[in-house]
Amino acid sequence: MRKERLYAPGPVELPPAVLEALARPVLHHRTALYAEVQDRVAARLRDVFLTGSEEVITISGSGSAGLEAAFLAAVPAGAKVLVINAGKFGERWLEIARTYRHETVELAFEWGRAADPAELEAALARHPDVKAVLATHSETSTGVLHDVEELARVTRERAPEALFIVDAVTSLGSAELRPLDWGLDAVVAGSQKGLLAPPGLAFIWLSERARQVPEEQLHPHYYLNLRSRAGGRQPTTPAVNLVVALDVALGLILDEGLENVWRRRARLTADLISSLEPLGFTVFAERVTPAVAALRVPPGVDGTELVAGLRERGLTVAGGQDRLAGKIVRPSLLGWADEFDVAVLAAAFRSVLAEFS
Amino acid sequence: MRKERLYAPGPVELPPAVLEALARPVLHHRTALYAEVQDRVAARLRDVFLTGSEEVITISGSGSAGLEAAFLAAVPAGAKVLVINAGKFGERWLEIARTYRHETVELAFEWGRAADPAELEAALARHPDVKAVLATHSETSTGVLHDVEELARVTRERAPEALFIVDAVTSLGSAELRPLDWGLDAVVAGSQKGLLAPPGLAFIWLSERARQVPEEQLHPHYYLNLRSRAGGRQPTTPAVNLVVALDVALGLILDEGLENVWRRRARLTADLISSLEPLGFTVFAERVTPAVAALRVPPGVDGTELVAGLRERGLTVAGGQDRLAGKIVRPSLLGWADEFDVAVLAAAFRSVLAEFS
Repeated sequence: MRKERLYAPGPVELPPAVLEALARPVLHHRTALYAEVQDRVAARLRDVFLTGSEEVITISGSGSAGLEAAFLAAVPAGAKVLVINAGKFGERWLEIARTYRHETVELAFEWGRAADPAELEAALARHPDVKAVLATHSETSTGVLHDVEELARVTRERAPEALFIVDAVTSLGSAELRPLDWGLDAVVAGSQKGLLAPPGLAFIWLSERARQVPEEQLHPHYYLNLRSRAGGRQPTTPAVNLVVALDVALGLILDEGLENVWRRRARLTADLISSLEPLGFTVFAERVTPAVAALRVPPGVDGTELVAGLRERGLTVAGGQDRLAGKIVRPSLLGWADEFDVAVLAAAFRSVLAEFS
Repeated sequence: MRKERLYAPGPVELPPAVLEALARPVLHHRTALYAEVQDRVAARLRDVFLTGSEEVITISGSGSAGLEAAFLAAVPAGAKVLVINAGKFGERWLEIARTYRHETVELAFEWGRAADPAELEAALARHPDVKAVLATHSETSTGVLHDVEELARVTRERAPEALFIVDAVTSLGSAELRPLDWGLDAVVAGSQKGLLAPPGLAFIWLSERARQVPEEQLHPHYYLNLRSRAGGRQPTTPAVNLVVALDVALGLILDEGLENVWRRRARLTADLISSLEPLGFTVFAERVTPAVAALRVPPGVDGTELVAGLRERGLTVAGGQDRLAGKIVRPSLLGWADEFDVAVLAAAFRSVLAEFS
């Protein structure tokens, strides 16, 4: 029997109060009891998304369901789209756009690099007719926090007609993100990351102009249709236990204060990196996200074996994906974590490395 | 403070062991710990779906997400489809088919009537070119259990090329359903009904010929793509807490024995009807589903007020929907319920009626 510790960039360890809320008796979704929860969650989501009075829509599904829902809500069929691709979740945007047979302009960056606004500017100059730019805020596969504020600014300047759509699945609640101030058009988040809730819910905010794309221009879609869910409508049964747990999680975040949470996450990740660098790990990401510490493993160490060694010690830590398999490790303090989890991770990494040498 | 009792046809009251499982620490979906749960759930789903060695695919989403996923997996774009429409969930099939701009043959039955296989036979004789028949097993809006065995038999005989696709969202786990023996092509279920789990998961089984519709003939779709999920693959983060709870719920059903559960549900619903008939309620459904007792309210009683009166007493019971609003009530013992819940419902109905007279 081993004590289990979850240090992956989602799903994350949850606060006990959130777990407790999950286990409450099921509420029927068409009762006043549930309406009260739903209204409070709606208000809290607006506060965490910083969308003022504008609605954030919840769907039952993974973060990818949210990405597809935003795409289907805002991108006209046949439109040319530009995808900023600097990792696995950039590739996901590309897959979605290609699934729907869109002409895609791929602006690719080496994994680990931050998307360069100057290169986006040049690409938009070559393709001023793109109708949407699909971006990733925190790219979990590489540990990079892309500068969506600047990327959105460039887009508004060079292709003012293009909608700027952001995958914020891992960043929302963990990194500064200001949809209204930054002129974004769609923001997608997931429950199981910085929002401290269980997996199974996705959240989508759309700007006014994104909501106004004429329906007849959109691809046909039913379950993921955000318009049918606008105004708090529930055309299908929501995952009520997850929503009740989310309510508690959002309350914890807002009690601490959103900006305090951003600062705390950034500090924890910086501390984690500082504590692992003396062991020979080096920062992989050009611009570090507070959601995960992507670290090159020390010379001679196999990242996959390192992750397995941590697993034997009860720690779940993500390794590198695809081309980065074995080359990086990705411990994360995105969940219910504090400074003492930094100590746990440092001790566990040391313990595994000692076995290797 | 009132004791709350949930007697709606989904989401339902859950067994304490299922609630407890929801609150366990989050498992990461790419670990051996979770793979063990997933494999056991996969085996239990096959046993509850009676699909032998054939896989049942789980997606995070509502029952309607499951219906759309089955449709997108098996119905070629542009194909002519026949929809058996005898209630709100028949209408949902129609909405999905129309969303994707299919030519639809609507075989409509009055709400409360059971779909007549002879009429289906006649419709198929007029439209032998339909590529799919979309049916509802337990129509929750009317309380009718449609005879999908016979409807499927007629379809195989008259339109052997047509796939027979069944909405079993409310029936699976509560009424006899034998996908292989009955020659069905797709069966969709939801977690929050007869399967005694929280809402947020949908399950889809596809017959071999449904799985073999060439991919290039299908509508583009991403999140709801069942092929990307075949063989237990998890392309996106599953709702792990819901799956862990489902595991426990399926274990309870299989421990009791699936056929025993079917019998118990039918007996409970019959007993509930017998106990409410003396109060002036009459059976609305031509062929009663074990999932819900749809009852015409006594003359002079307003069904909406009755439901509100039950609510004041802490009971959540469904009323009539759309054209049946105020005319029927729909108490259900689909959840964690036994014979003493029949006594609770009868006493509560008597209490409300006494107030009216």
